[in-house]
Amino acid sequence: MVSRHAIRRGVYYDSVVLMQLQRSLAALPGVVDAAVVMATPANRELLESTGFALAGVEAGPEDLLVVVKADDAEAAAAALAEADRLLEQRRAAGPAGAPGAYRPRSLAAAASALPEAHWVLVSVPGRYAAGVAQQALDLGKHVFLYSDNVALADEIALKQQARSKGLLVMGPDCGTAIVNGVGLGFANRVRRGRVGIVAASGTGLQAVASAVHALGEGVSQAIGTGGRDLKAEVGGITALQGLDLLARDPQTDVIVLVSKPPAAGVATALLSAAQATGKPVVVDFIGYPPPARRLGNLHFAANLDEAAELAVHLRRAGKAPPISDGRPPITGYVRGLFSGGTLAVQVLLGLQPVLAPLYSNTPLRPEQALANSLHSQAHTILDLGEDEFTQGRLHPMLDNDLRLRRLRQEAADPEVGLILLDVVLGDGAHPDPAAELAPAIAEVKAARPDLEVAALVVGTDEDPQGATAQGERLAQAGATVLRSAAAAVEYVSRRLQQPYRYPYPALPLAHFGEDGRSLAAINVGLEMFYHSLLAQGAAAVHVDWRPPAGGNEALMAILAKMRSGRREQQPHG
Amino acid sequence: MVSRHAIRRGVYYDSVVLMQLQRSLAALPGVVDAAVVMATPANRELLESTGFALAGVEAGPEDLLVVVKADDAEAAAAALAEADRLLEQRRAAGPAGAPGAYRPRSLAAAASALPEAHWVLVSVPGRYAAGVAQQALDLGKHVFLYSDNVALADEIALKQQARSKGLLVMGPDCGTAIVNGVGLGFANRVRRGRVGIVAASGTGLQAVASAVHALGEGVSQAIGTGGRDLKAEVGGITALQGLDLLARDPQTDVIVLVSKPPAAGVATALLSAAQATGKPVVVDFIGYPPPARRLGNLHFAANLDEAAELAVHLRRAGKAPPISDGRPPITGYVRGLFSGGTLAVQVLLGLQPVLAPLYSNTPLRPEQALANSLHSQAHTILDLGEDEFTQGRLHPMLDNDLRLRRLRQEAADPEVGLILLDVVLGDGAHPDPAAELAPAIAEVKAARPDLEVAALVVGTDEDPQGATAQGERLAQAGATVLRSAAAAVEYVSRRLQQPYRYPYPALPLAHFGEDGRSLAAINVGLEMFYHSLLAQGAAAVHVDWRPPAGGNEALMAILAKMRSGRREQQPHG
Repeated sequence: MVSRHAIRRGVYYDSVVLMQLQRSLAALPGVVDAAVVMATPANRELLESTGFALAGVEAGPEDLLVVVKADDAEAAAAALAEADRLLEQRRAAGPAGAPGAYRPRSLAAAASALPEAHWVLVSVPGRYAAGVAQQALDLGKHVFLYSDNVALADEIALKQQARSKGLLVMGPDCGTAIVNGVGLGFANRVRRGRVGIVAASGTGLQAVASAVHALGEGVSQAIGTGGRDLKAEVGGITALQGLDLLARDPQTDVIVLVSKPPAAGVATALLSAAQATGKPVVVDFIGYPPPARRLGNLHFAANLDEAAELAVHLRRAGKAPPISDGRPPITGYVRGLFSGGTLAVQVLLGLQPVLAPLYSNTPLRPEQALANSLHSQAHTILDLGEDEFTQGRLHPMLDNDLRLRRLRQEAADPEVGLILLDVVLGDGAHPDPAAELAPAIAEVKAARPDLEVAALVVGTDEDPQGATAQGERLAQAGATVLRSAAAAVEYVSRRLQQPYRYPYPALPLAHFGEDGRSLAAINVGLEMFYHSLLAQGAAAVHVDWRPPAGGNEALMAILAKMRSGRREQQPHG
Repeated sequence: MVSRHAIRRGVYYDSVVLMQLQRSLAALPGVVDAAVVMATPANRELLESTGFALAGVEAGPEDLLVVVKADDAEAAAAALAEADRLLEQRRAAGPAGAPGAYRPRSLAAAASALPEAHWVLVSVPGRYAAGVAQQALDLGKHVFLYSDNVALADEIALKQQARSKGLLVMGPDCGTAIVNGVGLGFANRVRRGRVGIVAASGTGLQAVASAVHALGEGVSQAIGTGGRDLKAEVGGITALQGLDLLARDPQTDVIVLVSKPPAAGVATALLSAAQATGKPVVVDFIGYPPPARRLGNLHFAANLDEAAELAVHLRRAGKAPPISDGRPPITGYVRGLFSGGTLAVQVLLGLQPVLAPLYSNTPLRPEQALANSLHSQAHTILDLGEDEFTQGRLHPMLDNDLRLRRLRQEAADPEVGLILLDVVLGDGAHPDPAAELAPAIAEVKAARPDLEVAALVVGTDEDPQGATAQGERLAQAGATVLRSAAAAVEYVSRRLQQPYRYPYPALPLAHFGEDGRSLAAINVGLEMFYHSLLAQGAAAVHVDWRPPAGGNEALMAILAKMRSGRREQQPHG
């Protein structure tokens, strides 16, 4: 067995071409294995781990590396010669594709050739991708950015710029999307329908779209955001644009929002925007504990398949129930004064994605820790049955004293808008909590009629206190009575839901099929995406792209500077 | 307004008595507020935060502190005098309760008086609780340990000892339980029925039991474990005993398991035990992302209310479907080779509570991080679409090369029992993945017939490759074909489920109502729990408990040593 290699410096080929080449070599007689890859450190390590000897081979990320393992030296040499022949043939023949199709050399020329194209698909190597995306934005185009290995700072800059212009940047590392029924990147063929998708996860989007199709429904638009969009640094720019778009889209009845767990603040912003759509929104933050099965128009799924099932179910169920009861929302803070620790945790869990900032003496996340349990901050959920409160005194289920004091303390805080108490009944508990709580509730309500008080009553009518009877007396005192932690979460989140309006320029619905046309797009990078567009009936033009300045970093920097100078002169060019 | 206080050193009263005293003082004319508490640091801080001036008051946790705020000095002095009078009256009258009832001074005397009592309820102050629980275990009794502020080391020692004797320690800080239809501690009155509960959460247990009752079903046994039982240090001793009991209990059809998120290893042990019950088990690990909606006989609920609803639904639905398909379980490791990142995460999320140790290059928890992505360890789920694998090469959805290499690498590892691949179809993806994957699967299966291969096919029949057709060719090659991540999780967890047998002495079913009798119990501590037992028709005796050695620490240590010496001589006394 012999191993041989060849290096072609600074050569750029579409990676599909390299894969085809690799397959041709591996199929040659006498060849045991072959690889044709750019010599990045990762690729080198991978090759070495699968038995290629690369010690001493001097090739870097810019270089094309051809390696073969063969039965003998002749077979190896023949394979390397064949590699050269195929590369030369490819170069001479020019790009494959629709014969005779016009191949502009620049994005600008492509935009002139297909002026109705609102979309640019970018799949050039990561280091060049931000530059191409920038050109697309400068031309006023939405960007589908398939490329990965793009710097986070570039992502943020591109997205902020796009947002200010009413343009969308899906990605980087956006594997898939469906716009106007046309799949971009990796996309499944699904019928058009009334389920819209916003996904920070490529295969999440594909799995949900495929499952929606399998269940007999279809997809209106499916917006990919790239995996980092919901990080705190990016702030969910693309996801928020997508939600706003689907909220306005008359073709979308139900929205599915899929992501790995977002940053805490981003989750709050997204769910607030999702609530504001007024449409049913199925949320699957994969790996995030669902705050509830349902919060108003938000439905939380346990996994991708359930997300699809819920969406189809909601689509068929028709109109969503009204979200608000007509009362103006509460603008103050919520303060939960719990005797039951698990009830406190359940409510904290339910409210954490929708209320911020939120504090507790039993925090679920470090940033929720209350500095001093005796003083609430912002929204606060307290477990008054914690050891710190019960040492040397009775449990608050039995002794209301501490809670009555705290109720008055919270009611005296003008920033408080809603106080939530639990009332746990049964043997062992206080024999008649309503006798003490109801007068105190009436008292604080009399002093502050704007203050809302809600009581979560846990127990049965067989309990010595009688759950229904207790609830009635608390209601007479002015409390809203709830009978489960889930209902309490639903109630609080509904009453505290603030009006939300998307504050940036809206994406034009006309670019999303409202003008009745299918998609027109410009493709830069992997040629197969161009063919895929054509196969789906989209109008498309493929740019015969080459690395700028032949991959020379210094020249690239100068070119980028020139472009940025031009932009400053024509800010909305 | 004046504030006055009095201190009574080293006096012990049932805290219910103190609450009643406090209420009597607060109701006196001219008294604005009053408190009667043990002067622990926490209580002092609480009092000061509610306006009592305690600066310079020298009183510690052993001392009873009486403080009053009154309109004038006379009213304050009168209140303090009344406090003394009431305390003296109480002391002279002896304990309240069923008149004429026998009040033994020791646990041993109580056990002689009510020999059929298998249960001891302990609600003495935390510092004395472990000692009383130890006495109960020495007498061969199960312990319901209501007391909080018990050291973790004491909890572990008590539980390990109990387990070795086939005894149960519920708690410390166990607020509630229902044994033989009798509520212990704080408990709601619910009908007897066929839903069994194991809960590391008092109000969680109460909320589920109340909701089960409201839905028309009832509770067989409800076992509280105390909040720390599922910590790694304790290892879920009580919860595992409870699951084993309910598995054997002919009165229990469905089990509900409720807890705040357990430690990772404890979760795996618990779910393994839950699977082994063979009964439907509804799991609500509050705040823990559910791995799936369902895994075999395990059903994951999003919250307490849903847990109750699911349990009632499953109880009514009758017999659970068979868990195993009859094939012997796989004993090797699972290796997941994913092209879809979200599919990898979804499967990792689903398997993390049931497989250990589990590694990934996209870990959900730090301890899951794979040291080197090129080498799997134990159970491993890989996302081969991560940047580290795709730099300079095509995405694995398009190029199977890397996956084929890795498939052979994993198959060559004799410790591997199951390889799971995803096959994501659609435009942009490989035009015919089965053409490359099926021969490779057939090849590794031929070399190792014991190896299982499963393929998760994502896509539609409209996709260029056709999902059904691709699946058929993979199945012909010997792969099990799955069509969703949820199905993949279900399949893997079922095939890897190892037989589980509870390895410790079993709790005697006869102590849980199998002998047809209700409950007999000894109460030590809060007298109200004694009255509650009587009110529910249980046989009970109340111990007239006083702090050992009058609260003197040195004497207590000597007494404890003497007891422990006795135990060594009579290990099962």
